[in-house]
Amino acid sequence: MHGKLLLSGVAVVLGAGYGAAVFAQAKPDVLVKQRQAGMTMIGKYWGPIGGMASGKTPYNAERVARNAPILEVLSKLPWDGFVETTKDVKSKARPEVWSDNAKFKTAADRMQKAVAQLAKVSTGDEATVKSALSEVGKTCGGCHDDFREKSR
Amino acid sequence: MHGKLLLSGVAVVLGAGYGAAVFAQAKPDVLVKQRQAGMTMIGKYWGPIGGMASGKTPYNAERVARNAPILEVLSKLPWDGFVETTKDVKSKARPEVWSDNAKFKTAADRMQKAVAQLAKVSTGDEATVKSALSEVGKTCGGCHDDFREKSR
Repeated sequence: MHGKLLLSGVAVVLGAGYGAAVFAQAKPDVLVKQRQAGMTMIGKYWGPIGGMASGKTPYNAERVARNAPILEVLSKLPWDGFVETTKDVKSKARPEVWSDNAKFKTAADRMQKAVAQLAKVSTGDEATVKSALSEVGKTCGGCHDDFREKSR
Repeated sequence: MHGKLLLSGVAVVLGAGYGAAVFAQAKPDVLVKQRQAGMTMIGKYWGPIGGMASGKTPYNAERVARNAPILEVLSKLPWDGFVETTKDVKSKARPEVWSDNAKFKTAADRMQKAVAQLAKVSTGDEATVKSALSEVGKTCGGCHDDFREKSR
């Protein structure tokens, strides 16, 4: 049972999904720290390219081509940290992550699919890349709007 | 010049190396936060498999096969945050990171190579995987011994 749980845990990490009971054995504060670290890393590689769709950041094809595959991996990593045992740990996660968990999972899946699509077209033409960037941006913002506290 | 700097920055991220001047434009505290997040993520995926070589953790082939490719990507990400502008930001990085920078880079390269080797053999037989795990562990520990403060 122990081994089975752990195994299904890592499977979820690589899958598109979100694993509720995956790291239930890890301490809640560790889970929160790890999922926040995952988001920080996504920010590191999304930050320099996220503004290209709107023109806020000058378009740079090489940067997209380098960052997108990294983001594809990173996009899968934070979700198994959003387990219900972490509910009472101070973070910017809103209670809706758990009270409306199906919607949260759908939003997380949508983001991963949009990032996978970006990675797929990341060496393509500018219009296609910009469209994919724009889609990713929407999935980030949409989920943050619903499930993340606004205040810093 | 601006674009060039950024471009070389992301190139380093995917290369085996460590890029001193890469994110010189980013704020030192952001760089520290990002490199610490990178290390936290490495810990997340290394933790469940790191003890398998010594037998501290029961051997689990599937877990190695899942975590190793993620670690291969993660192993490349913290290094561009160790720029000299971050010297005075509170962290566990010892001054030797900069005063003996060539040695630090060598240690970081060694870790990345050991993790790449682990990923390469990660679906192989137990003895080979354990040997690769052991090598990775040595490169983590060796670098932490020399370049990271002991106290928590």
